This record gives sequence, structure tokens and C-alpha cells, in this order.
Amino acid sequence: MVYFDSASSSPLHPVARQALAASLDEGWADPARLYREGRRARLLLDAAREAAADAVGCRPDELVFTSSGTRAVHSGIAGTLAGRRRTGRHLVVSAVEHSSVLHAAEAHRAAGGESGEVAVDRAGRVDPQAYAAALRSGTALACLQSANHEVGTEQPVAEVARVCGEAGVPLLVDAAQSLPWGQVAGDWSLLTASAHKWGGPPGVGLLAVRKGVRFAAQGPADERESGRAPGFENVPAIVAAAASLRAVRQEAAVEADRLRGLVERIRQRVPELVPDVEVVGDPVRRLPHLVTFSCLYVDGETLLHELDRAGFSVSSGSSCTSSTLIPSHVLKAMGVLSEGNVRLSLPSGTSEEDVERFLAVLPDAVRSVREKLGAPSGRPRPADALRATVAEAGAASVSGPANDDTYANGADATYANGAADEGENGAEGVSEGDEKPALTVDSLGKRCPVPVIELAKVIGDIGIGEIVAVLSDDEAARLDFPAWCAMRDQEYVGERPADRGTAYLVRRRP
Amino acid sequence: MVYFDSASSSPLHPVARQALAASLDEGWADPARLYREGRRARLLLDAAREAAADAVGCRPDELVFTSSGTRAVHSGIAGTLAGRRRTGRHLVVSAVEHSSVLHAAEAHRAAGGESGEVAVDRAGRVDPQAYAAALRSGTALACLQSANHEVGTEQPVAEVARVCGEAGVPLLVDAAQSLPWGQVAGDWSLLTASAHKWGGPPGVGLLAVRKGVRFAAQGPADERESGRAPGFENVPAIVAAAASLRAVRQEAAVEADRLRGLVERIRQRVPELVPDVEVVGDPVRRLPHLVTFSCLYVDGETLLHELDRAGFSVSSGSSCTSSTLIPSHVLKAMGVLSEGNVRLSLPSGTSEEDVERFLAVLPDAVRSVREKLGAPSGRPRPADALRATVAEAGAASVSGPANDDTYANGADATYANGAADEGENGAEGVSEGDEKPALTVDSLGKRCPVPVIELAKVIGDIGIGEIVAVLSDDEAARLDFPAWCAMRDQEYVGERPADRGTAYLVRRRP
Repeated sequence: MVYFDSASSSPLHPVARQALAASLDEGWADPARLYREGRRARLLLDAAREAAADAVGCRPDELVFTSSGTRAVHSGIAGTLAGRRRTGRHLVVSAVEHSSVLHAAEAHRAAGGESGEVAVDRAGRVDPQAYAAALRSGTALACLQSANHEVGTEQPVAEVARVCGEAGVPLLVDAAQSLPWGQVAGDWSLLTASAHKWGGPPGVGLLAVRKGVRFAAQGPADERESGRAPGFENVPAIVAAAASLRAVRQEAAVEADRLRGLVERIRQRVPELVPDVEVVGDPVRRLPHLVTFSCLYVDGETLLHELDRAGFSVSSGSSCTSSTLIPSHVLKAMGVLSEGNVRLSLPSGTSEEDVERFLAVLPDAVRSVREKLGAPSGRPRPADALRATVAEAGAASVSGPANDDTYANGADATYANGAADEGENGAEGVSEGDEKPALTVDSLGKRCPVPVIELAKVIGDIGIGEIVAVLSDDEAARLDFPAWCAMRDQEYVGERPADRGTAYLVRRRP
Repeated sequence: MVYFDSASSSPLHPVARQALAASLDEGWADPARLYREGRRARLLLDAAREAAADAVGCRPDELVFTSSGTRAVHSGIAGTLAGRRRTGRHLVVSAVEHSSVLHAAEAHRAAGGESGEVAVDRAGRVDPQAYAAALRSGTALACLQSANHEVGTEQPVAEVARVCGEAGVPLLVDAAQSLPWGQVAGDWSLLTASAHKWGGPPGVGLLAVRKGVRFAAQGPADERESGRAPGFENVPAIVAAAASLRAVRQEAAVEADRLRGLVERIRQRVPELVPDVEVVGDPVRRLPHLVTFSCLYVDGETLLHELDRAGFSVSSGSSCTSSTLIPSHVLKAMGVLSEGNVRLSLPSGTSEEDVERFLAVLPDAVRSVREKLGAPSGRPRPADALRATVAEAGAASVSGPANDDTYANGADATYANGAADEGENGAEGVSEGDEKPALTVDSLGKRCPVPVIELAKVIGDIGIGEIVAVLSDDEAARLDFPAWCAMRDQEYVGERPADRGTAYLVRRRP
């Protein structure tokens, strides 16, 4: 099995394993105790804190160990919001933060606070000026990841820290993905990270709070870890986490260059090998080891299973791979295709051979999924050709959608184009501003990527300039119809509420 | 080094070590992922949950793994209080709960909630009827430990669960100390525990919430662990914790009998070997492996250092061993002596030889501390004999208190006995109700056990029926003066506010 999901979790680094074994022997006692075993645990904990602080770039007394990266984020945000409550209750986050940050923002709003989201560009990157604009007099805290966990885009942390500093607002940086590769540049105020992302054991997060940041730890009192992380200190895991971070950092410069080359190869080759693929994320300002792409007409979950069968472990931001059936909020914020989404994050030591093998199996895996879905295959082609393909695909379909779409002339749809005349709907008669669909496809109850496949099948049936409406209640549709239009050079007219679900309108272009 | 502090933390059980090593290889991936490594982690997690649920006596879907016992307590209490908020905001706890419970109660009060404490008897045990009386219509939750962590007293959980059940109030049982020995009897509603207390690794707590308990997890959303324990699941540690619990339980019945015998020996022999010792906690209804005693005229921290030098690791609830200089709230609630406090909690496998060796070194260790403090030595004796000792001890003192007490006739004290006549203060003239001290000792700024030692030194200087006042600003004095009086059969009159600190009044008895 080749594991290409290190952004999710990494196996234990050999150095971490050694450190863990040793400190399970030496560091199991309560470091608050006065006897020998306790003092020994305290020494180990202190040394680990110094090593980790050195790697983070802060003072040891600014750093505490939490029970996870998620806890570090939750505690860091809650503590700063409480400590700066007199300033105000406004929180600023980017739209592509890790769910732990967005959930903390949600909890803050539920408790009566306010929050604002800074949008990203199509590469997933925030604009520092957008942060500057989002800050206001009552802003207590701003949060920004150092690099995105799903698409690898690096954020302009130093610039955002500068605009935050000028506004007197502390900036919390979620450095979970980038910390193994190096210190976070810029004048951040708080920083969080998670050890199992760099080959440390699970159960250890980092929370650094710069001196001078007003911070009031929330929750019941607990004197351990400066009152910022309740519970018995997990000394063995902390020691292993610090040792692993140090080891990973020593290899980071060389390994980053090597993995960057492999990722560059994937970024270039995948679109050559597989038709209808969109590689997403910033091509240059990115994490060295992470690449994400989406495949049109592909069910992400089925593709993951195909790749798993072929011996590759990867992850996906497609809606069908989440328990909530909602596509990744990151892909959504970027406005890119979410169907058939694949994220590869290469662990340290990934071999060229494994990458080549992946590139060798991917095309067949995608083709197989598309065939099962009865999806249009091949490269973009003119609508006339597509028209023929639709009929073929429908007939050849094995597990694909039943070919029973109702081609009603908009009769089922609730959206009314008040301004349009009630005359004929022939292709010739449709003007640019007219939203009356020539064709309505009922894709209700069908999940990504089926609604888009059904759109692709019928777009050739309408005239140039005419509109097709697809009724869908799938969350991914909102993202995937516009993305399909961009990839196929068709006009996305917009979405309208319908009796059931939503009608997505697409105008056929020549 | 002989480690007698398993109630604080236990070294890793061999079974846990094996399970940890294996599951670091097999269970490091994200159990939410669909690929092979993820599915394998999920299987391990599911199996661990079944094993732990079996040991707890609940359904697997009622049990989640938290990052510590403290977290389990905090989350269990916060979730139930929130879930039952419509019922009311009243929380009932015992006075001897673990600090994590009391801190959660404190946080609840700080957030506008109410809480009540149920007192304990001198053995540290609650009365179920006192729980019944403490419950009221707005009570959302009651908490009771299964057994006390400092003195080992077992609580009547089944009976308290019954009165709670009758009142429709859920009972949360903190089973941290007793779970390795067996299931908690009775119809509890929530249960918490901590793996490093039974030889599991740190970083794993258990929270069981019975179906039917209204529960609303607090803090930011997180879909892991039924939404009750945010953060990446620590699968390797969870697997090791469950394996260790199962292993410890298999040995529990035999080992409990053996340790119970060793503890019984300590309970009997210590008062024979060491003068002026109070063994505390219920002698019968107690944890098998835990025993606590307090030594008059002894500085707990110095005694711990002496025992550490002699090769024994033990803990103490004395004020001088806490960072806050406040004696254990447990000893306080029991009304027993807190100075020179020693808790022994024997790990599984403790040998008879180690116990005998401890009993051999203890008397010298205590004697040495008392000598350094210039404390009265030997067994209780009549006041005349004591009077002589005081002079001796004062002269012989090495690091003991300076012999410069001001023997002012109450001139410094602010407490006035309005009813007493302003006449002579001679011993003969003092009536039973008169609180005017014949002697005032200024012990301000001196820490436990010095104020009690100074009291012991002067009590023989006053007449029978006369009162000595000791001025003290040490938190432990409130506990130790009454305890000394009980042990010495002197009358504790009470405490009065003074200009500085508090005046503690003791009437000399024949």
C-alpha cells in the first residue's frame, strides 16, 4: 500500500518511536510530583518544551502542549476572544480555514459573537488587503492558516500579520500543515499545530501565545500547562512529538525540494494523462508535498475505492466522501470543481517509482469510474459530437442514471422569467436576457457527479443560445455546474429556487 | 526507587506497551478515511470501544474516548448541564470530589449557575440522605466519585444513584480510582475515568453517557467521538488503554485481596511505629491499595523529601506540598489533620518486602523532620511534661522557629470578649464562657506545621481552663488546630478574625 495522505496523518517517525519508548519508561509519572519519577518527568517535559519552542520560534514560556491540534485551535481562539472581550466580539477568519477554526467561529456566533470570512481567489489565497478591510474597531482576533490543508496554497501570513499589527488585532496562525517544513514567517500573535502531522504521535497539539496577547483561558480551572491545557500532561507523547519535529526539520530543506519536484511532475502529467481534469491550488506558492485535482464526471468515493484497490491511499474533498454530503468548503470558496476530487500529500521519503506508478494507474481508475457512471468521455468536443455521445452513453450505461429525464419545457420549474414574453421557446426566439429554459432535466435525489453528467448529456439537444435547467438538490451542484461551464466554455446563467431543490441554468454556447 | 503513588499515575502495563507498539504500526491513520489504513484504524478503535464498554458496563455507543480523565469530567458535566438546562442550573457535588469536578462546578457558578456541596463524615464518606436533601426541583446533575483519590474511602454510589433516580436527576460518577478494580455498582447515568491510572498511556479518558440522558456537547462542533470529544482520535493510545484495562481487571480480584492485606498492615503498624499519627479514611469500605495518614508536628514536604531520599515515592495532601499552600480540600472536608500528610497507593505487584522496608524507614524519617522543626516528640503526655519538653525542644532546635513569641496578654488581638469582665486574667478567674486569652502567640507568616508546634510548646505555660490564642495566616491552621485539639484532648474554642490573620483559641484541659 502506498500512502499519499500525510496531510491527514503521518505514521510515527522512527525518531518519535524511539523517544516514545524511552519516555514511556522515564516520563510516565506526574511532573507535578516532588519525588524522583515526578522530577524526571518534569525535566523531560521542560526539555521538550524548549525544543518545540525553538522549532516554532517562540519562548518556551509562550508554548503549551494541548491534547490535539483541534484543541489548540479551540483554546487559542476562545482564550483570545475572552481575553480581548472589552475590545469587542468580532472575529475574522479566512473562508478556507480548517474546520476546527470555522467551528470555533460558529460556536462564537452561537454565543452571541460576530465573525466575518475573508474570501479567497481561485487559487485559494487570501488578499492581505481583504483582511485589512475586514478588521474593524471591535475585532478581537483574526485567524489565518499558514498553508491550506486541502490544496496546499500558502497564505501571505507575514503581510496579513502586518495589517493586523497595524490595526492592533492579534493574528492566530493555524500552522498545522506547514510547521514541519519550517517556521512561520511574520509577526504572528498565536500559533497552533498538531504533532501527528509531522510523524509525532497523536494526542499532542501546540499552542503558542506571544507575551503581551491578552489571553483568558476558558473552561474549568486547571493549573497544568500555564492553565491553558487541562488534564494530565502526556509527557511521553510530548517528548516524542518534540523529537520528531526536530528530526523532520533537519530533513526538511532537502526533502522539500525533492517532493516539490515530484508534485510538479504530478501537476503537469495528470492533465496530460486524464481528460477533463482541473488541478487546483496555487502552482508556485504552495506546500512542497501536496497536490489536488478534480475530475469531471467522476464520483470521488468510487475513485478513492478504485485507487485503494490499485494500492494507493489518498483523500478527497468531494461531497460523496463526506458524511454530510457537502463538498469541501475549501473547494467551494475557491469556486473550483469538487467532483472526482483527489488530494495527494506525499510523506517524506516518497519514491519517484511510487509517483510514477500512481500516474500509471490513475487514467484507468478514472476511466473505469466514468464508464460505470455512463459519463461522457474524452476531451471537450463540439455539441453535435456530444449529442451522439449522450445517446451512446445512455445505452451503454451499466450502473449509470436511468435515461428517463423529463424534457418538460420548464413546466415543472417554479422560477418565472417575468420579463420574458410568453411566446415560442424556439432557439431562434431566445434573447440573451431570457431565462426561460428550452429543456428542464429533473436530477432531484441524484448525487454528484450525476447531475453534471445529465447536463452534459443534454446540452447538445438544445439550440445555441437556448437554456437548459437542471433541477438538483445536491449540495455539490452549486459548485460543479459553474465549474463545468468554465471547463466546457458554456454560459452559467445562475441558480433559481424551484418547487423542489434548485434549478441551475446553463445557456448553450457555440 | 519504590513507587507508592499509583493513584497519581501508573507506569505502563506490559500489555499496554505491547498494544501500543502494535497499534502505532496499525492504527496511526485517520479512522474516518476510506482507504485501507483508515479502515484498519477504525476497526481497532471499534474493538477498543467494545472492550472498554464491557469493562465499564455500558453499551459501546454510550462510550467515547476523551483526551484525559479531566476532559471527560469537564465535558460530562458541561454537556449534561447544557442538555438539562430547561430543568434548571443547579449542580450537586460532594465536598471530596476530584479537583476536576470542583473546578467544573466553579466554572458553572462563574457562568451564573448554582451548585451545592454535600458534606462528608470524618471518614470522608457521604450520606445518601444528604444527597437526597441536596437535590431540588432545579437540579440538573449530581456528581459523586466512586472512591476517594486521597483517602481511599468508597462512596455509597448505588444508594446515591437510587435517590438521584427517584428525583429524576442524573448522577455522574467519577470512577477514576476504582475502575481498574471493577465495575461501578448502581444505576449511574454518566461515568468518567482515566487510563493512566490503570497502566494505560496518558492521553486517554473515558466518558460514558447512558442512553436517555439529555446531553448537549459544549464547545465548537466536531463530528468525531459522537461529537463529544473533539480532536484527532488517539487510536494507538486508546487501544493500549482498553487492553490494559482488560488485563488489569483479570488480575483485579486476586491482587485486590493481596494489596488489601498489605494496606491493612500499614494501617495497623504506622500508629504503633510513629507517635502522634492519625490514619484517615474509612478502614473497611475503601480502595484495596490506598492508605493515608497524617503526622503531627511534621512538614509534609520535608517528609516527602526524606522518604524520597530513603527510596520511596509517595504523595501528600499537606498545604506545603501544593503550589497554592492550601491543604487538601479532602482532608479539610473530613476535618482531619493535614500536616505531615502521606498517601500511599500501592501499584499492582507491590511486594511485602517493599512495604516492610517502608515501615522500617518511616519512623526515622518522621523523627528527623520533627527534630529539625524542634517539635515536641513522643506520645501524648500530660501538660506538665509537655511544659518541660517545650523548653528542651526550643533550646535544641536547629532549623526550628525562633523562640521569640510575644507572650502578650491578648493585647495584640482584635477579638474582644464583650461579655467577659475586664478584671484579672489569672487562671482561677477564667470561667468556661470566657474567651480572653491568657497568652497570645504570634505565628503570622509561619507555615504548617510551625503554628501547631508553637501552640504545643506553650499550652503547658497557661493554667487549666485558660485560653491560648495563636495568630496565624496559614490556611492549614484552620484544619490543624482543631485536629491537634482532638488528638491532644484539648478544647478547641474556635477562630476569631484578628488585625492580621486569624486568632485560633485553645483552652487547656487537665
